Amino acid sequence: MEEMTAEIKKLIAREDEALLQQKVDELYPADLAEVLVDTTEEETEVLVDLIEEEKLAHILAEVDYEVEKKLLKFLSNNRLTYILDEMYSDDVVDLLGALNIGQTKEFLTLMKQEEAEQIQHLLGYDEESAGGRMTTEYIAMKQDKTVAESIQKLRDIAPEAEMIYYIYVVDEKQELTGVLSMRELIAASPEKKVKDIMHEQVITVNLSLDQEEVAQIISKYDLLAVPVVNRQGLLLGIITFDDILDVIEEEATEDMHKMAGNVEVDVEHEGEVINGVIRRLPWLIILLFASLLSANVLEFFEDVLNTVVILTFFMPTLAGTGGNAATQSLAVVVRGLAIGDIKSKEILGYLWNELKVGVLIALSCGLIIGLVAFIWQGNYMLGTVVGLAMIGNIITATVIGTAMPFIINYFGADPAVAAGPFITTLIDVFGYFIYFSLAKLFINYL
Amino acid sequence: MEEMTAEIKKLIAREDEALLQQKVDELYPADLAEVLVDTTEEETEVLVDLIEEEKLAHILAEVDYEVEKKLLKFLSNNRLTYILDEMYSDDVVDLLGALNIGQTKEFLTLMKQEEAEQIQHLLGYDEESAGGRMTTEYIAMKQDKTVAESIQKLRDIAPEAEMIYYIYVVDEKQELTGVLSMRELIAASPEKKVKDIMHEQVITVNLSLDQEEVAQIISKYDLLAVPVVNRQGLLLGIITFDDILDVIEEEATEDMHKMAGNVEVDVEHEGEVINGVIRRLPWLIILLFASLLSANVLEFFEDVLNTVVILTFFMPTLAGTGGNAATQSLAVVVRGLAIGDIKSKEILGYLWNELKVGVLIALSCGLIIGLVAFIWQGNYMLGTVVGLAMIGNIITATVIGTAMPFIINYFGADPAVAAGPFITTLIDVFGYFIYFSLAKLFINYL
Repeated sequence: MEEMTAEIKKLIAREDEALLQQKVDELYPADLAEVLVDTTEEETEVLVDLIEEEKLAHILAEVDYEVEKKLLKFLSNNRLTYILDEMYSDDVVDLLGALNIGQTKEFLTLMKQEEAEQIQHLLGYDEESAGGRMTTEYIAMKQDKTVAESIQKLRDIAPEAEMIYYIYVVDEKQELTGVLSMRELIAASPEKKVKDIMHEQVITVNLSLDQEEVAQIISKYDLLAVPVVNRQGLLLGIITFDDILDVIEEEATEDMHKMAGNVEVDVEHEGEVINGVIRRLPWLIILLFASLLSANVLEFFEDVLNTVVILTFFMPTLAGTGGNAATQSLAVVVRGLAIGDIKSKEILGYLWNELKVGVLIALSCGLIIGLVAFIWQGNYMLGTVVGLAMIGNIITATVIGTAMPFIINYFGADPAVAAGPFITTLIDVFGYFIYFSLAKLFINYL
Repeated sequence: MEEMTAEIKKLIAREDEALLQQKVDELYPADLAEVLVDTTEEETEVLVDLIEEEKLAHILAEVDYEVEKKLLKFLSNNRLTYILDEMYSDDVVDLLGALNIGQTKEFLTLMKQEEAEQIQHLLGYDEESAGGRMTTEYIAMKQDKTVAESIQKLRDIAPEAEMIYYIYVVDEKQELTGVLSMRELIAASPEKKVKDIMHEQVITVNLSLDQEEVAQIISKYDLLAVPVVNRQGLLLGIITFDDILDVIEEEATEDMHKMAGNVEVDVEHEGEVINGVIRRLPWLIILLFASLLSANVLEFFEDVLNTVVILTFFMPTLAGTGGNAATQSLAVVVRGLAIGDIKSKEILGYLWNELKVGVLIALSCGLIIGLVAFIWQGNYMLGTVVGLAMIGNIITATVIGTAMPFIINYFGADPAVAAGPFITTLIDVFGYFIYFSLAKLFINYL
């Protein structure tokens, strides 16, 4: 792709319009979208003029806010009217969602009244809910239609709909009564009625369902699309698999960032220095103050530290290993809860299992560090204290690392937030307390 | 779902076959697959007898190895022959891939010769490559067929194919020459030839492409399926979007686990204690030894530690904050590289940007911890040393956290592996070195 971008930039510089037009026509919208991330304002202007409206509609559905702004600058109202008409409603909603209210209103005036009203309606739903993700370009049939009639209707409206492979069957009140796939429609005998071949049991999602759960349903049942209904069972829209692919990627990214302690999530681009600072600093400062708890524990044991300075040498290893063990347990539970492989009810079984793993790991690491301390400093009591501290530390870490996500999940928060940094800071405190308590106990032999 | 499982278990206990059969018929394969995760051997036997073969084929395609084994135990060779015939080739490959060679051979003898040969062929590809993921139940047409003939052919073979919405066009040598969607086929006039309406530019993937890259392509171009070709351009199979949903989830899970330092990845189930230990202990031990580097740094500064014990109090905060800052930078780059939002060439721009963020964060945190140290211990020189150490520490952490994934990526390894624990261990070493070097410099004023 980087070569493609370079080549296009070269053609623009050379003002070779003929070859440029050919390249632009050859490229898929998704590719052009990538090229447009790296073009200057001047280059963008040249390109926008060469790309046909239908392709621009696809491109605008792909790109993020930055590129969107760049593109909109060079589109006349005339072209924009055509483009908005070409775009599916969920993509228009995404596009307008990024603009301010004044701009949004201006855009809505460019659309047909009926469509503008629909879009305005969709803009009212929470962005991350089924309502905010759905498109209204689905195919619905009345149940008394025959297979032949349905195929004819499909042929007529195919270019308009975002997903034509599922046909939803509704009654007069627009209530969803069944579904059938194009595969079934095409294999059925033409004179049969739709209601005789449809499936009456339909997997649906409610308007307000969170997008992550919508993704889980689409993925579990391997659907191309899922219909969105309100409480009365009226069909309002559909969510297609390709939007769900994006959701799954987004949510995985979000979880990973939360685990790393980034407050907000977005891939950062150059020039966003202040945003980067604002995003990260709050957590760092909270954690900084949390870690001062460890400083208090150390002050509490100042006499021990004063007497036996070599105890300090093993602080990083104890704290580090405890934190690592906790993070390992944590990752298993956080991800398991996120993709639904672990149920929140299973906490006790999980804790028990993790505890067994934790004890074995603790014994192994305790033995190793104990031997290292003994051999290095030639002090068998030091080895014993460091080894025992490691054992206590890892067992505590495993229990906290396993239990914490369940607890946070129970209170309705996202377990990924709890993760990594916060827990390791907490475990430091316990770890140092165990270590220096043991040391104090055996201080006369050290 | 948990209620559904409980209800079914109750019906089995009550031996209410009629109601049980009704429930089983009502449930989707994906739901039955979930129920079967929690059933005992006896319950499984009862259920398997009640589920029809077609549904069992879908269930076997969904469940993981544990459940698979449980189910296979209660299936006669007769039923199995029917089920294997019903399953798509990629799912059969997954199923057989989990068995040992003897069992695999036994299964292959149950299949039709032609299919068995095909499966054997597929089993030869790397599990995580396009070849290992593809199915051979696609729809291919010759380019001279008319639209009407094609629709008729579709009607006949629809039940066999895994994906009938993309029709691939091949020449006599089975070389892929074009593609068209069922949507386009159905909208075209019946007498037209396939070659006149097909797209000649087809997005394909090579047999050996990694599944993560296949996922990126399907997601980028919003495809329902992508054709798999060999170097000669011969069409060998397709990979459908639903398999890709699984890949995206798997890969995100894998990345998260790698970042947490779990060597191998799988949601852990009860009774897998030894596996859990084997999976986690190696990394922990490697990191334990790595952290002893910090111990060496501390020993090197033993005299400083002996003189000013209060320096110890700030060790956890310095190390912790440095580690957290590094992890934040890391998460942005690792995830960005994984989903393709960051290109490996962009390292310098990124580093520069992160450095700016890092300096601002470092100054803020340095000021805070410096003030805390000064106020707490009433020693302005201590405040200065701790504050300066924090600044140096965070800047180092940011640079290492940003650069490391790029470097690891450059050498062809997965940047997620490098992550979290390893880098924080490394940063501890630098952090302590900076801290105690500064302390040594100012030792007379502390």
